[in-house]
Amino acid sequence: MKIYDGGRAPNPRRVQIFLKEKGIQIETQQLDLNAHEHRSPEMLAKNPVATVPFLELDDGTVISETIAICRYIEEHHKEPDLFGSTPLERATIEMWNRRVEFGFFLRVAHSFRHLHPGGAVLEGEQIPDWGRKNQKLAIEYLDVLETQLASNQFIAGDKFSVADITTIVAVQFLKPARLEIPNDGLMNFKRWMKEVTARPSMEL
Amino acid sequence: MKIYDGGRAPNPRRVQIFLKEKGIQIETQQLDLNAHEHRSPEMLAKNPVATVPFLELDDGTVISETIAICRYIEEHHKEPDLFGSTPLERATIEMWNRRVEFGFFLRVAHSFRHLHPGGAVLEGEQIPDWGRKNQKLAIEYLDVLETQLASNQFIAGDKFSVADITTIVAVQFLKPARLEIPNDGLMNFKRWMKEVTARPSMEL
Repeated sequence: MKIYDGGRAPNPRRVQIFLKEKGIQIETQQLDLNAHEHRSPEMLAKNPVATVPFLELDDGTVISETIAICRYIEEHHKEPDLFGSTPLERATIEMWNRRVEFGFFLRVAHSFRHLHPGGAVLEGEQIPDWGRKNQKLAIEYLDVLETQLASNQFIAGDKFSVADITTIVAVQFLKPARLEIPNDGLMNFKRWMKEVTARPSMEL
Repeated sequence: MKIYDGGRAPNPRRVQIFLKEKGIQIETQQLDLNAHEHRSPEMLAKNPVATVPFLELDDGTVISETIAICRYIEEHHKEPDLFGSTPLERATIEMWNRRVEFGFFLRVAHSFRHLHPGGAVLEGEQIPDWGRKNQKLAIEYLDVLETQLASNQFIAGDKFSVADITTIVAVQFLKPARLEIPNDGLMNFKRWMKEVTARPSMEL
């Protein structure tokens, strides 16, 4: 197996942290996104949709999409499970991972893609009004996370999961998206942030 | 178990089709989205993020997010499997379901939400330039599907899956999003459309 990776961009970071939480290493080739290496003929032949990261199996089969890659890894390395160990746990983690993806992660990403000069490389035509709307919605979503974390240690319950990885990677992308965590309130969210960023898997 | 549903909106349709493919029925209460029934105090107490559909278990636990609901149902009713039966099949279906969600389904949804008067009920402030960009990207994505369907009977391979449900529901939402399938080309995509819309699960 081999991973074609994209440095410190959010989706590459999600898979990197996931692998460290599992305690496994996979051969990795970094692609320079600014030099459009992921769009070279060789890479487009492997992954025509040109996303990073993607996983190439030994027979040449390619799996793209961060969560598809993580699920495939979990199938072969079950412990510690990061997608849940019972039907209800798996559904709850899937629910929270998706809530955070659509409610927070994507909003942070769109803020960056539509307002930061570096976002134009990925987005092409930027629409600043859409960026500003997403900035507002991303920060508002922190209240949902605060409520959840007031009665749960982690995003999807009492266990660290892929939903925490999705959330912390979006948090760490707030700065390029020109966003800040409000100074006041969000005490449970800030407690969670401190705990999660201290995990060894978060080291660069 | 009980489903709180939202009529013919895209995510409710996905779960309805999924259940019919499984051949199971679950007690259902329709919520009138235009009357904001999903935002009533009673419903917000159950599902604070106010999305439909959501599943309520007998002990009051709520699972929201279409794909989390479908996964939970698949755990309890394995046949016919719609998320795959081997690790590679499951990863491939997850990959294609997500590719279609981000590359097509969401783009159709944003076209509707930002350009159709009915979209303002859901979206609040509409940003027409973003709607028009999504219209363009949604139609362009049909070429990705055409290429995939030139060598596969279904979206994720040789087996009907949840990725087909996601795709066909987005296709059926093109009209409210003021989009049309181009008359020319896309022969494999059109072959797939005809086959999938003829399935008994698609009946309203």
